[in-house]
Amino acid sequence: MAYSPELERILKEKGIKVGNRVRVEKNGHVYEGLLMPRIEVGDEKTLIIKLDSGYNVGIKYEKGVRIEKVGEGKEPGKIPRLKIRHNTELPDVVMIATGGTIGTHVDYLTGGVYMCRDPEEILFMAPEVTEIINLKKALRPFTLASEDMTPDEWKTLAKLVAKELNEGAYGVIITHGTDTMHYTSAALSFMLRNLNKPVVMVGAQRSPDRGSFDGAMNLICASHVVKSDIAEVVVVMHGTTNDDYCLAIRGTKVRKMHSSRRDAFRPINEMPIAKVWQDGKIEILNEHRKRKEGKVEADAKFEPKVAIVKAYPGSNPKIIDWYVDNDYKGLVIEGTGFGHVPTQPLKKEDSWIPHVKDAVERGVFIGITTQTIYGRTNPYVYRNLRLLNEAGGVHLEDMLTEVAYVKLGWVLGHTKSMKKVKGMMLTNYAGEITKTSDPRSFLY
Amino acid sequence: MAYSPELERILKEKGIKVGNRVRVEKNGHVYEGLLMPRIEVGDEKTLIIKLDSGYNVGIKYEKGVRIEKVGEGKEPGKIPRLKIRHNTELPDVVMIATGGTIGTHVDYLTGGVYMCRDPEEILFMAPEVTEIINLKKALRPFTLASEDMTPDEWKTLAKLVAKELNEGAYGVIITHGTDTMHYTSAALSFMLRNLNKPVVMVGAQRSPDRGSFDGAMNLICASHVVKSDIAEVVVVMHGTTNDDYCLAIRGTKVRKMHSSRRDAFRPINEMPIAKVWQDGKIEILNEHRKRKEGKVEADAKFEPKVAIVKAYPGSNPKIIDWYVDNDYKGLVIEGTGFGHVPTQPLKKEDSWIPHVKDAVERGVFIGITTQTIYGRTNPYVYRNLRLLNEAGGVHLEDMLTEVAYVKLGWVLGHTKSMKKVKGMMLTNYAGEITKTSDPRSFLY
Repeated sequence: MAYSPELERILKEKGIKVGNRVRVEKNGHVYEGLLMPRIEVGDEKTLIIKLDSGYNVGIKYEKGVRIEKVGEGKEPGKIPRLKIRHNTELPDVVMIATGGTIGTHVDYLTGGVYMCRDPEEILFMAPEVTEIINLKKALRPFTLASEDMTPDEWKTLAKLVAKELNEGAYGVIITHGTDTMHYTSAALSFMLRNLNKPVVMVGAQRSPDRGSFDGAMNLICASHVVKSDIAEVVVVMHGTTNDDYCLAIRGTKVRKMHSSRRDAFRPINEMPIAKVWQDGKIEILNEHRKRKEGKVEADAKFEPKVAIVKAYPGSNPKIIDWYVDNDYKGLVIEGTGFGHVPTQPLKKEDSWIPHVKDAVERGVFIGITTQTIYGRTNPYVYRNLRLLNEAGGVHLEDMLTEVAYVKLGWVLGHTKSMKKVKGMMLTNYAGEITKTSDPRSFLY
Repeated sequence: MAYSPELERILKEKGIKVGNRVRVEKNGHVYEGLLMPRIEVGDEKTLIIKLDSGYNVGIKYEKGVRIEKVGEGKEPGKIPRLKIRHNTELPDVVMIATGGTIGTHVDYLTGGVYMCRDPEEILFMAPEVTEIINLKKALRPFTLASEDMTPDEWKTLAKLVAKELNEGAYGVIITHGTDTMHYTSAALSFMLRNLNKPVVMVGAQRSPDRGSFDGAMNLICASHVVKSDIAEVVVVMHGTTNDDYCLAIRGTKVRKMHSSRRDAFRPINEMPIAKVWQDGKIEILNEHRKRKEGKVEADAKFEPKVAIVKAYPGSNPKIIDWYVDNDYKGLVIEGTGFGHVPTQPLKKEDSWIPHVKDAVERGVFIGITTQTIYGRTNPYVYRNLRLLNEAGGVHLEDMLTEVAYVKLGWVLGHTKSMKKVKGMMLTNYAGEITKTSDPRSFLY
């Protein structure tokens, strides 16, 4: 994109091309760096300068602004690209890019937002990261928007993370689309056995062409967490809509709770593990596993024939039969309240109980969660709950529906014995079950 | 249940029977009322006295406590029952009881919690209500736990409410189980056209045998709201876990967000209509319809062949075909983030897009909501959203999934023209669509 005719004339007069090193003075401030082309969405009178820090700055050209060429730049006439600085005195971290908004960049020719060509480029948005960690390598096993992730990608990631950790990475950062980041974080929490280092998932709710872009700060906070003693799969995203701090939330207790806010990721039924500031301060708020020696195991067996079924007024229980007829091995029923399904005393043929009973008799595991999101199921309080329990439905404590679904696929990847499946589903493997919900965490 | 042997001996000596009027002195305090039998779960040395206010008080018997008989009581030897006081100077309110925890009472013989025999009995738990409103009548069209409610009951309620309002009730209070109260509140919001008086839904998260019973305060606050100018279907429940105030939340913007907490009902994407205190103070926080003259119409047509389908990683899009094959007329897909479904570029046969397209071509309406609960869908931000949109999926603004489902049944009860259905689904009928979400309402 070209600047305004007036600005283009001035640049031409001074022999300044895109990519040259320039010095701009405005109101006593001096900016020095490489001249970038205009962003399509940007004001045509605003010069874009890439500073040595890696950040771009926009300077509106008006009376009194002076611009001078101070060097040719490395590739005059071409759009400047940064190289990642490596500092081998910092901890070696592997970054795995999977897609999503955080994997995009603004193209200075078109102004559009595109996937980065190279996963390293993601760090150009947050150059400070290279002063916190040493990027050992950046990998991109696949590029998928998060709505397109499947259990196959979870397995790929688990194996890759285990390999990199076992080959010496101090920790792993995974960039990921936000929509299903909490499904992936749960999957990795179960699949990475004996995890002994941080695995930090990070994304962006706003694209980098917007002033409210959150990816840079999230990456900076993620790089502090990946250096920390928090040896868990965690999601690191904005804690508030301000750029004050991020939250590090356990991978099995996190949920995207808003479609667009930057602070959409919230802890459910327990406090976040930590608050993290851009300057590196970490305030621990909850228990967590610590770094230790040993090998990480990628236990990535997964039975894909699992599904979530929601129970609600007017819902059709024959949906359970459909899954059973189609050879599904397990279902998570998202019930109401303490984990209810319709029992329909007035229209017994619409009751869910016989369908649950039939599925269980046919060897399908039926787990029960609650659609309230917060809180815990309870199989005893009311008679209808006991009916469901007697039919074979297993109330899954305070596990999130999404987490229960992921866990069920993982458990069924290991055993088809219904007794063992039940035992494993009610065993806490990765912080997915809390004994008592922290009251402070409600709507945190 | 009997009191402790010592206490039973003292009562016998003084000739005091259950049902007698007694006077108990302890630490200078004097309590006078009818002697109740012990509650099973209660301490055997704690006397239960029904005060004239209607409330029970427990007084632990210990040294220095004096108990005297001061009257026979109306039915000595029998468990005292209250009669509802009527004060025709207060506004005439109709109470409709449907079941749920708030419709239960503690049986003083067994200590168990049972359904009230008579809907009026519900008010025995909150006798103050009779000083706020005049109970014109108490109706019980059916007794169902809320997990057993169906669209048929919504229709019954809508017709009953409209009849009572048109026959002069100043407002209606509906007691309801909490699990699906927000589905019913949404259904009544759509079915009660030209609503001109308050319709207040109220429940209890804790049963009346527990110290944390919330039903009494909720009923008291509900009776203040039913006298107010808020001519909407609202849910009135605890605002916090303390007994400080209740919230009145619009019937289409409310959701049970915790399985057990007393403050489980929260507003989504907008502020509550009001805070309500037990002393009658009402603080208005949001816009609402006002009382006015005219007739309410029960527009209770409802197409039951509607369903909710959740989209998530690994989900099977053939579930859409199953519903279409079974003659369903409309589906609400609870997508991820802005309203995504899996498009599966790596395994095109698993994409949801062709199934959506096929359903739409076969005349089935496909609405899209978000499983983030908070926030709004958006059909434009990403390419995959536009794909879904082009296939015929209609993103339903910031409607809650549950509300969109109820609304879709109601809309399809009126027209099967897909163009009209889309128009109606995107028209705001009862506050279910807000133009901009109030940022203060996130995790309120």
